[in-house]
Parts: sequence; structure tokens; C-alpha cells
Amino acid sequence: MGIITIERKVLEKNDELASQIRDKFKINNTFVVNIVSSPGSGKTSILERTIEKLKDKIKIAVIEGDVQTDLDAKRVERYSVPVVQIVTNGGCHLEAKLVKDALENIDLKEIRFLVIENVGNLVCPAGYDLGEDLKVLILSTTEGEDKPLKYPKMFINSSILIINKIDLLPYVDCNIENLKKNALSINPDLVVFETSCTTGEGIEKWCEWILGNIKY
Amino acid sequence: MGIITIERKVLEKNDELASQIRDKFKINNTFVVNIVSSPGSGKTSILERTIEKLKDKIKIAVIEGDVQTDLDAKRVERYSVPVVQIVTNGGCHLEAKLVKDALENIDLKEIRFLVIENVGNLVCPAGYDLGEDLKVLILSTTEGEDKPLKYPKMFINSSILIINKIDLLPYVDCNIENLKKNALSINPDLVVFETSCTTGEGIEKWCEWILGNIKY
Repeated sequence: MGIITIERKVLEKNDELASQIRDKFKINNTFVVNIVSSPGSGKTSILERTIEKLKDKIKIAVIEGDVQTDLDAKRVERYSVPVVQIVTNGGCHLEAKLVKDALENIDLKEIRFLVIENVGNLVCPAGYDLGEDLKVLILSTTEGEDKPLKYPKMFINSSILIINKIDLLPYVDCNIENLKKNALSINPDLVVFETSCTTGEGIEKWCEWILGNIKY
Repeated sequence: MGIITIERKVLEKNDELASQIRDKFKINNTFVVNIVSSPGSGKTSILERTIEKLKDKIKIAVIEGDVQTDLDAKRVERYSVPVVQIVTNGGCHLEAKLVKDALENIDLKEIRFLVIENVGNLVCPAGYDLGEDLKVLILSTTEGEDKPLKYPKMFINSSILIINKIDLLPYVDCNIENLKKNALSINPDLVVFETSCTTGEGIEKWCEWILGNIKY
């Protein structure tokens, strides 16, 4: 039995579990996003700004995925929302099984919006369904406008693209129009937001979009 | 046979091939670095500045690893050094077998310094020996000072840390002393350089270090 066969079996098993998790989210009317990006693009910062804006309007919970440490869970915890940390111990992506286990510590009936923050990796998490409604891909302006072309699978499998750190545009070699053009050439259906967690620009619009997707 | 066993076999096979490649490098007196980082940390930019400085002093060749596209090989080609592009087609890291194949297109006898630019991924490439003398890890200031703690394996397995984009320090929430402290807490043997490809700062020092490692 070759590595390819094993990989296919792992993915099949993952998809099966993800489908069960998705049913659970549906029954509980919980809107779920899986946030993916390179390390340091601003997943946790966007999440903090989002919770700040929305926590008095809807009940939010967070599943934090990290290769190591619970630093991100600690950052999120300060906002008094339920948070579960998954440490993958070297693993390069979250899998549905890990999310299933994490969900045992969250009362979904209460939760309208669940955020799963994936491991920082623009490659591997693209192939793993976690039962989410959609993948939100964060790319920072400092990473360069060529990234959609070089890492296409993540852009194809995501529904939302948040271009973050737009406050740094004057200082980096990145034309945001080219970046958007490249992203939309890979996936024309991407809904694009532009944000800065430093200035707060664009966070309002992103949060309105979330509120429009909450099921009551 | 479980996935763990398969993974171990894949790594064993990789290490065996890497060891053969390492012998080949040694026979030819070629100093080889494997450059690793997140997407967009500046691997190709550092490489361009390095080639500019060194190409009249030593014969350089480049192996470019990318998930998709030959954009990086085209950037490097402009400096008239031999370059071979490996497209992994979704693969999240380079393996020794791919490097072995790429080497069929490079006359190592001529080459004193070979740079292998890995796929942009701070997790998976850490486990794959490519026969290099050492791994050079690039981390940009925009990624944040917590990254050594969150992605420790890459920091443990690297010998050199280049902190890039230091020109952006005034605009980002990153204390470079904390970043270095975090990196050295994970791997006290790391040799650290600080660079900016925009201003050119630190490139000279890094290039001098390379020249000190060339075998004639």
C-alpha cells in the first residue's frame, strides 16, 4: 500500500468526520469559519478585533490550532469568550478529529459564531475540511502580490480573502490591485475585505458581513 | 500498516538519499544552504541581493522550490546564474529525491555555493534533510516575535536565523530583542543576522559569512 493510498484514506476519513461535524453545526444554527493563513499574517489579531466588535451582539466561541504553545488561546481568553486550544505537537494542519474532540468542551446551542483558527500554513490546511461553513484566508500585504499564484489551492478552497496590514502598504513592495487581480484570477468567487488591525480600518465591514451570515 | 510507519519509512528513505547528495556536495567542494521560511518572508529577495553581491566572487547556482509557478526561478535567472525550478504541484516541502533530480541539470564541479530555496512553509520542510550543509531560516519582522515559540522545530533544525524586513520595525508590533531572545531560547546555537532587502542593511555581513564558509 503506497503513501498516496494512505493519504487518500486519511482524507476520506477526515471528510466523513467533517460532514458529521457540519450536521452538528447546522442543527445548532452555529455559523462557522475556518481561518487559514501563513504564520504571522494576523489571524489572531483579526480575531481579537472581531470579538471586540461583536461579543456584545452574538455569542462567540473559538477553537485555536497551534503547532506549539497556548499563546493564542491566552490572547483570545482575555475577551471572555469560550476558547479551546488544540496543540498539534508538530502537526502542520488541523483535522476534523481534533475539532470534534475540541467541540466536547463547547456548548454549541449557545454559540452563534464559531471561529476555528488553523495552524499557520498556506499549504497543508487547504486539503482538510473541518466541517466549517467556509474558509477565510488572510494574506498580509507584506507577503507580496504573487502569493495567490504560488499557493493556488488555498485560494481556490477559500470563500473569503482578507487582505490584512493595509497600513503597511506605503512601506512594502505590494500593489493591492495586482494582489486582488492575482487572487481573483485563481478564484473569481472570492469575497475580498481589506483590513488593518493597527488602525482598525475595514474591521467594521468584515464584522457586518459576519452578522449577515448568522443564523438565528 | 499505519500512517506513522509510512511517514517514518518516507523519512528514512529521504535521509538515505540526502546522505548520498551530501557526499556529492562534499566531493565537489560545494557549500550548500537550504533556505526555509513562511511564504513572503523574503527568501527570494535575500537570494537576489546575495547573488548581486557575490556573483563576481564565486560561482553560484540555485534550486528553486515552489508549490506552483516558476516566478522565483525567473527572478533569479535575471542574474545569469544557473537555476533549476522544482514545482511540487501541491507538495508542501522539498524532498531529497526532487533535489537529486534537479542536480542532474547542474555541473557541481563549477559551483562553490548552491542555494536551495524551499517551499514557503514554516512547518513541514523542517523534517526533510536535503543534503545541505545547513538550514537558513528567514523570519520577517512583520510575522511577530512569538513565532520561534509557536514553530519551534524549524528553529531547532536551523543553524542561521536571518531576521528580515528590519526597515519595517518602526511600523510593526515587533520588538527585535524579544524576537531574538525567543529564538535563542529555542536554539541557543543560532547565528543571527538582521537584514533589509529594501535598504540593503545587513546584506554585506551575511555575504561575508557565506564567503567564510566557501571551500576551495
